[in-house]
Amino acid sequence: MGRYEKEFKNFLDREKKIVDSKLSKALKKRKPESLYEPGYYFIESGGKRLRPLLVLLSVKAVGGKLDKAYNAAAAVELLHNFTLVHDDIMDNADKRRNIVTIHKKYDTPTAILAGDSLVSIAYEYLLKDCNGTAKKVLSAFTKSLIEVCEGQSMDKEFELREAVSIDEYILMIQKKTAALIEMCCITGAIIGGGKEKEIKSLAKFGKNIGIAFQIQDDLLDIIGNEDDLGKFVGGDLIEGKKTFLFLRALEISKGIDKDKLLQVIQNKGIEPEHIQSYKELYQRLNVFTDAENEIKYYTNLALKSIEKLKNEKCRGFFALLADLLIKRRK
Amino acid sequence: MGRYEKEFKNFLDREKKIVDSKLSKALKKRKPESLYEPGYYFIESGGKRLRPLLVLLSVKAVGGKLDKAYNAAAAVELLHNFTLVHDDIMDNADKRRNIVTIHKKYDTPTAILAGDSLVSIAYEYLLKDCNGTAKKVLSAFTKSLIEVCEGQSMDKEFELREAVSIDEYILMIQKKTAALIEMCCITGAIIGGGKEKEIKSLAKFGKNIGIAFQIQDDLLDIIGNEDDLGKFVGGDLIEGKKTFLFLRALEISKGIDKDKLLQVIQNKGIEPEHIQSYKELYQRLNVFTDAENEIKYYTNLALKSIEKLKNEKCRGFFALLADLLIKRRK
Repeated sequence: MGRYEKEFKNFLDREKKIVDSKLSKALKKRKPESLYEPGYYFIESGGKRLRPLLVLLSVKAVGGKLDKAYNAAAAVELLHNFTLVHDDIMDNADKRRNIVTIHKKYDTPTAILAGDSLVSIAYEYLLKDCNGTAKKVLSAFTKSLIEVCEGQSMDKEFELREAVSIDEYILMIQKKTAALIEMCCITGAIIGGGKEKEIKSLAKFGKNIGIAFQIQDDLLDIIGNEDDLGKFVGGDLIEGKKTFLFLRALEISKGIDKDKLLQVIQNKGIEPEHIQSYKELYQRLNVFTDAENEIKYYTNLALKSIEKLKNEKCRGFFALLADLLIKRRK
Repeated sequence: MGRYEKEFKNFLDREKKIVDSKLSKALKKRKPESLYEPGYYFIESGGKRLRPLLVLLSVKAVGGKLDKAYNAAAAVELLHNFTLVHDDIMDNADKRRNIVTIHKKYDTPTAILAGDSLVSIAYEYLLKDCNGTAKKVLSAFTKSLIEVCEGQSMDKEFELREAVSIDEYILMIQKKTAALIEMCCITGAIIGGGKEKEIKSLAKFGKNIGIAFQIQDDLLDIIGNEDDLGKFVGGDLIEGKKTFLFLRALEISKGIDKDKLLQVIQNKGIEPEHIQSYKELYQRLNVFTDAENEIKYYTNLALKSIEKLKNEKCRGFFALLADLLIKRRK
């Protein structure tokens, strides 16, 4: 797999630039400014552009032309940013990607509308790239939007519930995070002209890598550092989120350890000054290792599903992407 | 036109029932309940279902089959309800259709998500009804969603601005209200298999009747009564909205009358106890009559655009619908 490393890096660098420029143009010069400026501010703050790159990689994997999918690539990133803007309101988040969130910089009505307009522009961009495949592509896109809402609702509901099983958690992140990543692969595969089998394989890759990605996100939220993350460390504990780490810790802990975890539920979160002691508890309970194993499990499932892809280089690229995600710090 | 009155009433009653039942099913039994129950509560609180009926009337006008458009009819109502749910958060509204608004009954995060999910289900339903026309129908639908966001943003921006011209106001309501109504006509006409000319005529009808509808809404907000409206009277003045009435009054008033109006801008709205005195000022300045004339002007434009429709009965139905809108009390 190492042999494609340089080529893969070039691919990422080159395509990310194209996607970034597409995204800039998507919101620039639109009127009224009061609507589009906040969205522009948010989009321009960066991001890995993982989802557009997955669209493009999937186009490549089925032998399609990248040129036909840049609008769709921008569309999935616009949709993703919509979810971030609205989630940040709901989660009371102050910071994201090292900038102040929209609802804090402006106000909640502005952030609600900015999010809504991102959805609408996402559909506009997606429609540009689907001649003849509109129904299929738009259906996949819409399905993922439905699931994202369902997942976010489950996530909020879990904050208030005492007992949440790890299975329920996996279903929640499958909807909240993995569905959109799965859709990126499906969208690229359809627009690229892939066969039904190829679309399904890529969908599976997206779904499983998406689950791995979210568990990694949970992990980074507490073991990462603020500069890399671009947001405060330990936010999930502060908000009382039922992350993989928390649920796993709750599952295996006893006595005063368990009581300490139950307090997070009871108090609907913790104060920032207690993050360190919870981090130590997680460490002692070995849940960081458990999370890493879970990430590896879903990553392997993802890689297994694309073993049959014809294009060896693309398989290599997907493997490198998976590797990148596991080793990321933000 | 009177000759179709009974038939038209039967059409409305029959089709409204079908649409209502479709809408109930659209959100019932979906999981998680925390997401869908609030949307269901809101949709079930009623509404005129004007927009779905316009879809169906447009299908009929081009000789299409109603059966092919019930999902699309539900879709436009779902989209409309999304705009209401989010607008109510932004406008701080307590009541709508005689029920407590979602963000007041539950909380703001719940209302944001309920709105988002209504958009997603709207697309899901629309997609069910567009085989072969997906790109065209979805493009019109998406364009209207973009415009609704732009219009709402302009409306909020106008609240803070001193000078707003009547032309700017008309552009704002064209986007905020008329674009969605125009889209209903376009959607029905495309799904019904209409010719380009027919689609354009119906689009014009929708746009102009939509503008008339919004000015009528401004009027009812102050001359209507609470039970009919299902919300508090004078809400636009309380919120400091730049309505047609307000802008027209500002345009023609002088001296202390003008000062009284400028105070609304300065104080970003008025207290409920002052509504009556502003109503009297409007009366004295004759702006209610001006609004009625404006409504007639746009209604006539709407009716003119469908003069060439072949089906005489449909022309009659559209005229009766326009009449219904002008005479409505809610």
